[in-house]
Amino acid sequence: MKKVGILMGSDTDLPVVQKAIDVLRELEVPFEAHVMSAHRTPKAAAEFSEKALENGFGVLIGAAGMAAHLAGALAANTVLPVIGLPIRGGAADGMDALLATVEMPWGIPVATVAIDGGKNAGLLAAEILAVEDEALRGRLRARRDAEAERLRAKDAKLQQTLADQLK
Amino acid sequence: MKKVGILMGSDTDLPVVQKAIDVLRELEVPFEAHVMSAHRTPKAAAEFSEKALENGFGVLIGAAGMAAHLAGALAANTVLPVIGLPIRGGAADGMDALLATVEMPWGIPVATVAIDGGKNAGLLAAEILAVEDEALRGRLRARRDAEAERLRAKDAKLQQTLADQLK
Amino acid sequence: MKKVGILMGSDTDLPVVQKAIDVLRELEVPFEAHVMSAHRTPKAAAEFSEKALENGFGVLIGAAGMAAHLAGALAANTVLPVIGLPIRGGAADGMDALLATVEMPWGIPVATVAIDGGKNAGLLAAEILAVEDEALRGRLRARRDAEAERLRAKDAKLQQTLADQLK
Amino acid sequence: MKKVGILMGSDTDLPVVQKAIDVLRELEVPFEAHVMSAHRTPKAAAEFSEKALENGFGVLIGAAGMAAHLAGALAANTVLPVIGLPIRGGAADGMDALLATVEMPWGIPVATVAIDGGKNAGLLAAEILAVEDEALRGRLRARRDAEAERLRAKDAKLQQTLADQLK
Amino acid sequence: MKKVGILMGSDTDLPVVQKAIDVLRELEVPFEAHVMSAHRTPKAAAEFSEKALENGFGVLIGAAGMAAHLAGALAANTVLPVIGLPIRGGAADGMDALLATVEMPWGIPVATVAIDGGKNAGLLAAEILAVEDEALRGRLRARRDAEAERLRAKDAKLQQTLADQLK
Amino acid sequence: MKKVGILMGSDTDLPVVQKAIDVLRELEVPFEAHVMSAHRTPKAAAEFSEKALENGFGVLIGAAGMAAHLAGALAANTVLPVIGLPIRGGAADGMDALLATVEMPWGIPVATVAIDGGKNAGLLAAEILAVEDEALRGRLRARRDAEAERLRAKDAKLQQTLADQLK
Amino acid sequence: MKKVGILMGSDTDLPVVQKAIDVLRELEVPFEAHVMSAHRTPKAAAEFSEKALENGFGVLIGAAGMAAHLAGALAANTVLPVIGLPIRGGAADGMDALLATVEMPWGIPVATVAIDGGKNAGLLAAEILAVEDEALRGRLRARRDAEAERLRAKDAKLQQTLADQLK
Amino acid sequence: MKKVGILMGSDTDLPVVQKAIDVLRELEVPFEAHVMSAHRTPKAAAEFSEKALENGFGVLIGAAGMAAHLAGALAANTVLPVIGLPIRGGAADGMDALLATVEMPWGIPVATVAIDGGKNAGLLAAEILAVEDEALRGRLRARRDAEAERLRAKDAKLQQTLADQLK
Repeated sequence: MKKVGILMGSDTDLPVVQKAIDVLRELEVPFEAHVMSAHRTPKAAAEFSEKALENGFGVLIGAAGMAAHLAGALAANTVLPVIGLPIRGGAADGMDALLATVEMPWGIPVATVAIDGGKNAGLLAAEILAVEDEALRGRLRARRDAEAERLRAKDAKLQQTLADQLK
Repeated sequence: MKKVGILMGSDTDLPVVQKAIDVLRELEVPFEAHVMSAHRTPKAAAEFSEKALENGFGVLIGAAGMAAHLAGALAANTVLPVIGLPIRGGAADGMDALLATVEMPWGIPVATVAIDGGKNAGLLAAEILAVEDEALRGRLRARRDAEAERLRAKDAKLQQTLADQLK
Repeated sequence: MKKVGILMGSDTDLPVVQKAIDVLRELEVPFEAHVMSAHRTPKAAAEFSEKALENGFGVLIGAAGMAAHLAGALAANTVLPVIGLPIRGGAADGMDALLATVEMPWGIPVATVAIDGGKNAGLLAAEILAVEDEALRGRLRARRDAEAERLRAKDAKLQQTLADQLK
Repeated sequence: MKKVGILMGSDTDLPVVQKAIDVLRELEVPFEAHVMSAHRTPKAAAEFSEKALENGFGVLIGAAGMAAHLAGALAANTVLPVIGLPIRGGAADGMDALLATVEMPWGIPVATVAIDGGKNAGLLAAEILAVEDEALRGRLRARRDAEAERLRAKDAKLQQTLADQLK
Repeated sequence: MKKVGILMGSDTDLPVVQKAIDVLRELEVPFEAHVMSAHRTPKAAAEFSEKALENGFGVLIGAAGMAAHLAGALAANTVLPVIGLPIRGGAADGMDALLATVEMPWGIPVATVAIDGGKNAGLLAAEILAVEDEALRGRLRARRDAEAERLRAKDAKLQQTLADQLK
Repeated sequence: MKKVGILMGSDTDLPVVQKAIDVLRELEVPFEAHVMSAHRTPKAAAEFSEKALENGFGVLIGAAGMAAHLAGALAANTVLPVIGLPIRGGAADGMDALLATVEMPWGIPVATVAIDGGKNAGLLAAEILAVEDEALRGRLRARRDAEAERLRAKDAKLQQTLADQLK
Repeated sequence: MKKVGILMGSDTDLPVVQKAIDVLRELEVPFEAHVMSAHRTPKAAAEFSEKALENGFGVLIGAAGMAAHLAGALAANTVLPVIGLPIRGGAADGMDALLATVEMPWGIPVATVAIDGGKNAGLLAAEILAVEDEALRGRLRARRDAEAERLRAKDAKLQQTLADQLK
Repeated sequence: MKKVGILMGSDTDLPVVQKAIDVLRELEVPFEAHVMSAHRTPKAAAEFSEKALENGFGVLIGAAGMAAHLAGALAANTVLPVIGLPIRGGAADGMDALLATVEMPWGIPVATVAIDGGKNAGLLAAEILAVEDEALRGRLRARRDAEAERLRAKDAKLQQTLADQLK
């Protein structure tokens, strides 16, 4: 299976990125994660993206905050799909990172998820690899079903809570 | 090749969606486009998404404005990757559509592109299908190269414009 | 009396929803509350709404955060009035939930209250049921009068506080 | 049937309010519409609201722009449900009107619809009156079905458009 | 001297309003402060404003949060100058209160100060009364001079801090 | 009577400022209006403010767009009340001017009116001068009454329009 | 004298950039202007920046709209000062470009000017080069004086306009 | 070498400004820092700017929050480059300070850095002075290289962390 390449602009982004990592591990999707910055190590980031295909990657995730250029910088150097994960933390509480990630000019798309949406970034990467991988698709489907089941259990528990309040 | 399924919430979204259609045709990616609404025809939209895989789709695009629920409604019913295309037009000039599309709760990702980013929605769909399709990847690569060439031609023309201004 | 149906997208929304529940109990309005999600259990939510009338509901409340689709998903499947309760918590501190709830396209209205406005959601539901229920209207009226009285008491206490400051 | 009372803060709001009027006429819901302002004729507005119930109204709509206080001023003087219709036009392109309408303090709810959402304000008023009016509910249901049918026709037309583009 | 009338929509606004009170006391400007709400006690607030002139008030301050209508409601019932003091606390962190206060339609101005700007509300009220009161103007002038002096002292202290850092 | 001093940062602000001028003329309030800039002619603006009192001014209006510093610069040099009039035109459509005008630090208040609120700036200036001028207060009161009368006439006309629509 | 290097991400940015060019020509500051994109020709942009010093540039301007990465991409590859010029045009009317330009992470500054602030970008570049160039500083000073003079002339003309209105 | 002049509007801005001071000391750039306010000591601030050149300054930094006029007030009185440092703290969490700093009208540029971007303000000042100072440029270059090295070390540490998680 092709790997997911995860770049984060700073090691302080790890708590959010860890959620992507956890979901990829849970889904048995191989990945690599690195600290690389579009601003502090621009060549390393560009080169990682340029060689991503030959290095066995199928989809990239760029996680960054503030004027979040990382996902766009990756997308500029590959035609692999690139997921943008805006990190909260800038002055505009992540709205700066969201706009800097999603508002890409035509020609170079970035598949943006919610601010601090680490888990969804990992799930989206898996969904993309699953388009041609029936087994992975099955694991994604099973995960969804389990999630729905958990919600139903929470509803049952809520009924109990509401009943208890009346005692 | 798997198809791209494009749903738009209203036929007034067509001018933006047409750019996705044009780029898919240019890249020889098969697609279907439909007017379906998460609010006006919710069952049709849900069913389209549920049966997308068996009907030969590999990736979906949901285009909608205002409280743009369409992409999220598609994503809720499939584990295929779903691209969200927010359409300008609401009171907040598209910011409402952007937030309603991108801020998905964890578990159900939507790959969001820029407001009115029809061309990028089409390109992202193609990139996703190209992960396992070398020929399509080649066409995407060639498209990028042509785009860069056009930019260089524009730079050359700019030099002429600046020189002319001094005459 | 017809019941109020309260759906929340996540059990973490309960602290806000509880305020709606408390005010309904205080006003002796029957209700049911459930955890159901437009994204994680879309069919259950759609079905709840579709059968709401025959199950004795007169008005629904949909409480959700981030890209808050729940109220809209309920409204898409019923002509009963649906109240949208946006929950703070997303990246935009609830502004995402507000816009995703209130900016409904024409044809499918959602009666939106303030972000985290649980109490007002409950009161609005009661006001709607009270249009044809004089007794309930009386309880609402009495509640308002008591509230105004409490405010007057606070003003009296303020005068004491200001006087004490000068001692 | 109880009437819908529509107040607008300025006669320049009529183009948006007219959509509410049209939908109420279409649904055969009786209504009255007036120009009254929370700021320019505050007593008239307060009195209209106070006497709304005895004058045969079942639900009120307050339409205003900028620092839109009208719906809140109505709600302060009645326990009938009050719908807030924020009008675009202020410096913040309607966001000022939206926030000034929806962010009501607890105790006094306003059922807010989208900025310039005149049609939905009318539909919501009808839905509220229809809770105890089966015939009106039937007309609302029929309207929804016709709307869905129109959308299906638009989809059919889109297929033709797309086919024509390839000729 | 004419009095300043201070109304706050809730007793929870007191910490901000207290700063206005303190500055008025410091400047020896007489005032009254009350808890009254445009929504919970609308008639009391309207009446306070209507009779403000005959009761010896020269300027009013309306302090409120969220959909802050209080200052506007006061201004609607008097031609005395009304100062609007938006209180942080709503979902939009006070931006809702600011827009609901400042964006008044033409005809009924509200003199708005910064969000949570209690001290400036008090100072502005004093400045307005000082237009025809030379003694008060002198106290305001002295207060400014003392403030500038304090700033110069802080600068001197900064020089010491910077020098200490190098030891 | 003391004069109103109106400064605008650019002659392009005149269309908005003209509304203040017109209302002052209508109310027979003497005024002077000048083009002066906090940035392009900072000393002239500072000096105007410093000498405003001795030159017979009772209240100042500062009208500016974008990073609107003019009202604040005036307020920094006088204890006369200063009205801030934010002008639409910057990138944020006047929100930049609003925040730059209203968010003054404590100690130096600016009485801010709505974006492009020229008429209200003039009315507020008149209200401030009218605190000690019964005749002017009477003209302000008469103006309000005439405005309310005009609104009632518009309501009457609306009834005719609605009736005509049914013919 | 060192040159100013101006890069714009698209030739559609020229109308704004032209104002920078005009002011540089007026001040006799040498410059080069090019169309290069951080996304469409990322290597060319990086290389331009890396070699800027040896190619005789003293300051760079990066003009771009939407997710405006160009100035940041230049700054990542040089320690010359880089001016960011955000261009209006994205969904958020330039606010996306502003935040994507100004909110740079620590370590890599971008000197950001107003949205569409082409003239100020040129002036700032000239001011930077003038720090060690007394003659250029003199031309900048003369330009300011002329600007102030123009403003005074506009004030004189305003007095005439106001007088004419009374005839 | 010319000095950097740092003005802050309040001593509470020091924690952010200290980062600029630290980086200037690290780079051996001489500086002076003062507490001066555009509003509380407007003449001192204007005079500081007017005499900055003759007093040996080459670039100024103005740090302020809320309606942040300080950098603009400095820029109005000098043709030296002025850096604007918006400080978080106002009601809009620094967005007010950002817009009040960056949205300068044409003619008077302010080189704005990120909200609370003290370190970048210092670095930008150093970059400006380094345009004609090869040694300082070398120290800036070395600082960048060290920063990149630190990032690579963090990446290495991340690999260890990820490996440890699997044990």
